[in-house]
Amino acid sequence: MMAPTVAVLGADGYLGWAMSLHLSRRGYRVIAVDNLSKRQWETEVSATPLAPISSMETRVARWREISERTIEWRNVDLRDADQTQQLIADHRPDAVIHFAEQPSAPYSMIDLEHAASTQLNNVLGTLNLLFALNEHAPDCHLVKLGTMGEYGCPNIDIEEGWITIQHNGRSDRLPFPKLPHSFYHLSKVHDSHNIMFACRVWGLRATDLNQGVVYGVQTEETALHEELRTSFHYDSIFGTALNRFCTQAAVGLPLTVYGRGGQTRGYLDIRDTMACITLALEKPAEPGEFRVFNQFTEQFSVAELAGLVQRVRAEYGLETSIAHIPNPRVELEEHYYNAKHQRLLDLGLQPHLLSDTLLESMIQWVEQHADGVDGVALQHPSVTWTGGANRYLHPASERDGVAAVRV
Amino acid sequence: MMAPTVAVLGADGYLGWAMSLHLSRRGYRVIAVDNLSKRQWETEVSATPLAPISSMETRVARWREISERTIEWRNVDLRDADQTQQLIADHRPDAVIHFAEQPSAPYSMIDLEHAASTQLNNVLGTLNLLFALNEHAPDCHLVKLGTMGEYGCPNIDIEEGWITIQHNGRSDRLPFPKLPHSFYHLSKVHDSHNIMFACRVWGLRATDLNQGVVYGVQTEETALHEELRTSFHYDSIFGTALNRFCTQAAVGLPLTVYGRGGQTRGYLDIRDTMACITLALEKPAEPGEFRVFNQFTEQFSVAELAGLVQRVRAEYGLETSIAHIPNPRVELEEHYYNAKHQRLLDLGLQPHLLSDTLLESMIQWVEQHADGVDGVALQHPSVTWTGGANRYLHPASERDGVAAVRV
Repeated sequence: MMAPTVAVLGADGYLGWAMSLHLSRRGYRVIAVDNLSKRQWETEVSATPLAPISSMETRVARWREISERTIEWRNVDLRDADQTQQLIADHRPDAVIHFAEQPSAPYSMIDLEHAASTQLNNVLGTLNLLFALNEHAPDCHLVKLGTMGEYGCPNIDIEEGWITIQHNGRSDRLPFPKLPHSFYHLSKVHDSHNIMFACRVWGLRATDLNQGVVYGVQTEETALHEELRTSFHYDSIFGTALNRFCTQAAVGLPLTVYGRGGQTRGYLDIRDTMACITLALEKPAEPGEFRVFNQFTEQFSVAELAGLVQRVRAEYGLETSIAHIPNPRVELEEHYYNAKHQRLLDLGLQPHLLSDTLLESMIQWVEQHADGVDGVALQHPSVTWTGGANRYLHPASERDGVAAVRV
Repeated sequence: MMAPTVAVLGADGYLGWAMSLHLSRRGYRVIAVDNLSKRQWETEVSATPLAPISSMETRVARWREISERTIEWRNVDLRDADQTQQLIADHRPDAVIHFAEQPSAPYSMIDLEHAASTQLNNVLGTLNLLFALNEHAPDCHLVKLGTMGEYGCPNIDIEEGWITIQHNGRSDRLPFPKLPHSFYHLSKVHDSHNIMFACRVWGLRATDLNQGVVYGVQTEETALHEELRTSFHYDSIFGTALNRFCTQAAVGLPLTVYGRGGQTRGYLDIRDTMACITLALEKPAEPGEFRVFNQFTEQFSVAELAGLVQRVRAEYGLETSIAHIPNPRVELEEHYYNAKHQRLLDLGLQPHLLSDTLLESMIQWVEQHADGVDGVALQHPSVTWTGGANRYLHPASERDGVAAVRV
């Protein structure tokens, strides 16, 4: 039997690259697709990864040398309908894993231009893909990365994509209502509706993975060589709260909690992202099915995460302070949150829970690259939900009157 | 007190033009805005209105002559962020009524290009407007035209935008789940989510009107002069089922019902559209409120509408046949449908229900313009939900091998 062909879209990103390696190692034929726009966005907002990331050419060559496996690298822009059609027609993949979206909520809140380009990039890219699949690979399994942030924080349990509603003596299973957190999260909601429609009307098959916040600096494969490394962001645009706290701990700065810190979200280890997506590939959605999994393993509030990092440091005799700073986002800081995440466990997921050991290893990894930490980008949110970009957004070299806190 | 300023976006359309006249007559200062793209789309798919429509310049001049009132006409493209900012900054309107969207489901299903341009036109136009309002007129009341087709046909009662869900012993009021019928209807769902977010995060105020299918060839104001006429479409792209049936009755062709005809939707008279929107303007949403009204007055199935037309003609001794043709759409043909529409009644709406008299007057109006009816466009759906455009889409002059059934 021939190895299944999987196109990984957004293969130059944090998860896309790790996924490409993971699947290649497991014998899939991997077509790694990207247009490299994430690197441009990083440069634009002066938020490059903490440790340098090799070019796709170097990564793929290094992987071939180490593994004797070939990842086929294609520079394709999903915003271009013809390129997208050609990609799917050329390879007729068995599955497509679609990470190829602008992934940052703050980036989408900079201003109108960034809100519009985020929705255009994400929604039109996915539309182009849906039409290409319908024309050239209608049986292909689309695995689409969504986000738990599509749901927002409702005052009821969050189900996995669909909810059975009892109302006035009748009942129906309907899409779970969404209260997305930003123009970026909105773009994912729009995608979900478009994909659901393509499944219902054209009979495409899709798995929408509403993923939590991913942590972890490496997988088995990315750890094999520094040229196979994947990206790590600690800044307020492309970073996450946990990455920020680990970096702040590593360089001895206070952990900055937005507001009261009661914001609770789902989290998972990058190795579990690899496992979840592999499980979804191995048991694809049925033709016409729009399947939704909530892809995370544990819930934490932001204050709990800061407390965990503080405790881990204390075990090494290091004191870490926590600073509550004004919340740049408009979001609830105390709320009910109980999101279901059973369906991937049912498929066999064995979670890596967040442990003191992992946290300490993340902090140690940052310490090795501490020379590259930009203290301003680390300590100051550069975009607010009501005012857009502030003076901290611009590249360090252009910051006007802002002390460059190089650590 | 100065008259309130209302910007009517999409003022060249079927409802936008009638609305501009209606408000002007009632003393509002009306800024009529359009980029005239609907006329281009009509030409593109060879689906011009049955009776000729005057240019905006002519319409506005004629209205000034008849009413001694001025409608300020501005050619502005909402897809252009700068033009949109300038429009709102120049006029700082008290209210904006936003009709300025590609309004056809079949048009959005022609192919990828039309699906993408529909979503881009509608979603980015509305995004540009939201940012312009937030910057230049944050207290302005946005009245946005949505559609009942956003909801699809759930097996529970359809509430007005929000639903209180009881789930696992808890309760929340959440956005009503959506199962939209086409890429056009999806664009309206995307708009609704974006607007809801702008209200929640920025404190804008909006009324989202999920409107049913509008019928009627004229209002008090458009009837005053043929140069004040608004558009009437009977074709399968921009027309409605009721307009098609009236036209088929007028020219003596069979009424073509898609499939079994059990498709049930909400309907309203164009005069009630005028009244509903005026009521919404008079009692605006609160700051931060995202208010949703279901704007229709009666429900009918497609088969019921055909039966009504048949009965009205029989009263005049005319026999009309009904033909069930293959459904070009993917939709349920028998389903539960009970959509609430109480909130506009609570504001004082006094509905004009669909009467035999109105139906007969619509048919008579078509008879006066019967010379212009294109029998092919009338009898043959030109877009299917699974195959896109078919050979009937192209202009009559270019149809290959299709008998031009001029009536």
